[in-house]
Amino acid sequence: MSIKIGILGYGNLGRGVECAVKQNSDMELAAVFTRRDPSSVKILTSSAKVCNVSELNDWKDKIDVVIICGGSATDLPVQTPELAKSFNVIDSFDTHARIPEHFANVDAAAKSGKNVAIISVGWDPGMFSLNRLYANCILPDGNDYTFWGKGVSQGHSDAIRRVEGVKNGKQYTIPVEAALEAVRNGENPELTTRQKHTRECFVVLEEGADAAKVEAEIKNMPNYFSDYDTTVHFISEEELERDHSGIPHGGFVLRSGKTGWNGENKHIIEYSLKLDSNPEFTSSVLCAYARAAYKLSKEGQSGCKTVFDIAPAYLSAQSGDELRAHLL
Amino acid sequence: MSIKIGILGYGNLGRGVECAVKQNSDMELAAVFTRRDPSSVKILTSSAKVCNVSELNDWKDKIDVVIICGGSATDLPVQTPELAKSFNVIDSFDTHARIPEHFANVDAAAKSGKNVAIISVGWDPGMFSLNRLYANCILPDGNDYTFWGKGVSQGHSDAIRRVEGVKNGKQYTIPVEAALEAVRNGENPELTTRQKHTRECFVVLEEGADAAKVEAEIKNMPNYFSDYDTTVHFISEEELERDHSGIPHGGFVLRSGKTGWNGENKHIIEYSLKLDSNPEFTSSVLCAYARAAYKLSKEGQSGCKTVFDIAPAYLSAQSGDELRAHLL
Repeated sequence: MSIKIGILGYGNLGRGVECAVKQNSDMELAAVFTRRDPSSVKILTSSAKVCNVSELNDWKDKIDVVIICGGSATDLPVQTPELAKSFNVIDSFDTHARIPEHFANVDAAAKSGKNVAIISVGWDPGMFSLNRLYANCILPDGNDYTFWGKGVSQGHSDAIRRVEGVKNGKQYTIPVEAALEAVRNGENPELTTRQKHTRECFVVLEEGADAAKVEAEIKNMPNYFSDYDTTVHFISEEELERDHSGIPHGGFVLRSGKTGWNGENKHIIEYSLKLDSNPEFTSSVLCAYARAAYKLSKEGQSGCKTVFDIAPAYLSAQSGDELRAHLL
Repeated sequence: MSIKIGILGYGNLGRGVECAVKQNSDMELAAVFTRRDPSSVKILTSSAKVCNVSELNDWKDKIDVVIICGGSATDLPVQTPELAKSFNVIDSFDTHARIPEHFANVDAAAKSGKNVAIISVGWDPGMFSLNRLYANCILPDGNDYTFWGKGVSQGHSDAIRRVEGVKNGKQYTIPVEAALEAVRNGENPELTTRQKHTRECFVVLEEGADAAKVEAEIKNMPNYFSDYDTTVHFISEEELERDHSGIPHGGFVLRSGKTGWNGENKHIIEYSLKLDSNPEFTSSVLCAYARAAYKLSKEGQSGCKTVFDIAPAYLSAQSGDELRAHLL
């Protein structure tokens, strides 16, 4: 009896979920739902169906959890509450500032449908959030540090590509090693935006574009680049394709805290990720939480939850006895 | 309305709990219970009482959670089930192989008393276990690695001190940097005991003892040292006191895994601790889980739990709304 998974949206994230489902022997992919013409979408799992989103309601009794793989800007705020009325759902909503609003909408919908919804699942928000929470609870007297990278920022790459004269481009966010070391040494530095990360851009110019002008425009772009030390490299389309087609990412969450009657002892808690594929890792986290949603739903629970609300054992296919014997 | 904490046992761990309670504004220390004559035990918290263990039952309605700070070999297997009949309890039981048996005993007692017990809380078992579990659930296709140190091993220091001719001694467990790097690089090495850790001993000799004989006896000691590359330094009692009186520890939990349809992408999850004081950090984890025990008990739950069974939000004094707004 395996957990039947539906995927809504078949981009990088949806394909990642398909791969992750294959790695979990207690799960099977039932169907992929797309806004496109289903006949135009080829998936990897021969036993699963490809359907149009309009058919979702026909699958109510054939799917245990729908993993919603849309974008946070416009897709998820609509899709997750809508689907939570009829299905257990998981999403990776990552607009930190709008999480409370999204939570409230999804909670009302999930409760009305007696389903379990888990939002903001992935690595940030997600595993990084969990590590911030655990570390804050253990070391109440301390400082938090989050560094991202080295990795590709989709938003910054998009920003580069909107610059006039740019044909294509990719942006890497890179943590400043000296800042990381200062934190690890327990120096509790106060770090400005510029001191924490640098930005490195690989840009393919349009025929005849002015490189100096493009470089200046990128480096001075407010919000995206002007607060950072930014490097711009001009390369050919072939080089971009050859050396920069991956979607790696990662980062570091640190808490530096003190204990003792007079705060005389220092402690550093560090969590880090080094990911070849940002979407595939996020998908892997989504699948683990899909298992949790399934189990919670079987227990009769409902409503919206986040990673903070899920006991870790729910993520595992193993029993409590097995976990205590082998992983504790 | 703060959470009233009792401490059973006032050694390094008990003192650490006392310091940690002070850092948590929603907690207060009610009493320390000792097997010694209470008048001989001086504590730091002026508002708390020192009592003999025999008085524990008088405190049933005045303490929300007892944090049991005894040893795993003989204290906890008796104390935790006994106290769980009357109190919500936390312990740091760390004999991995006997956890299932301890769990069963404590579970029966806690259920009979309608209390919550959380066992094996600390960093290993504890935070390291949690990280092994999360990482295994996220990356089912992968390998686990746990390294300890650099830090003082109490068991190995005790073993040194039992050698004839040794007056005093301290042993550090040190992870092998090259092994750590190979894991971080995704090489998935198969590591022998010797390849993972080295052991460094600082030994004070008795007057007239044979250094070469002591060194040979330490290095060849089965289970403790014979499977490791061990270094022995002979120092004076003053040097030992000056340079080696701390109880630092720490370590690394890594999972190296693959994702993708054909396992084409590699990922590394790493969690590490660098601790000035092993007992004070463990105490800080115990306090966070004491809050969870208190909240679970208020919800009417009972029985034995481990870190695997506790949703992270229970560790925090903040509400779900606050956590979602600030830490997610």
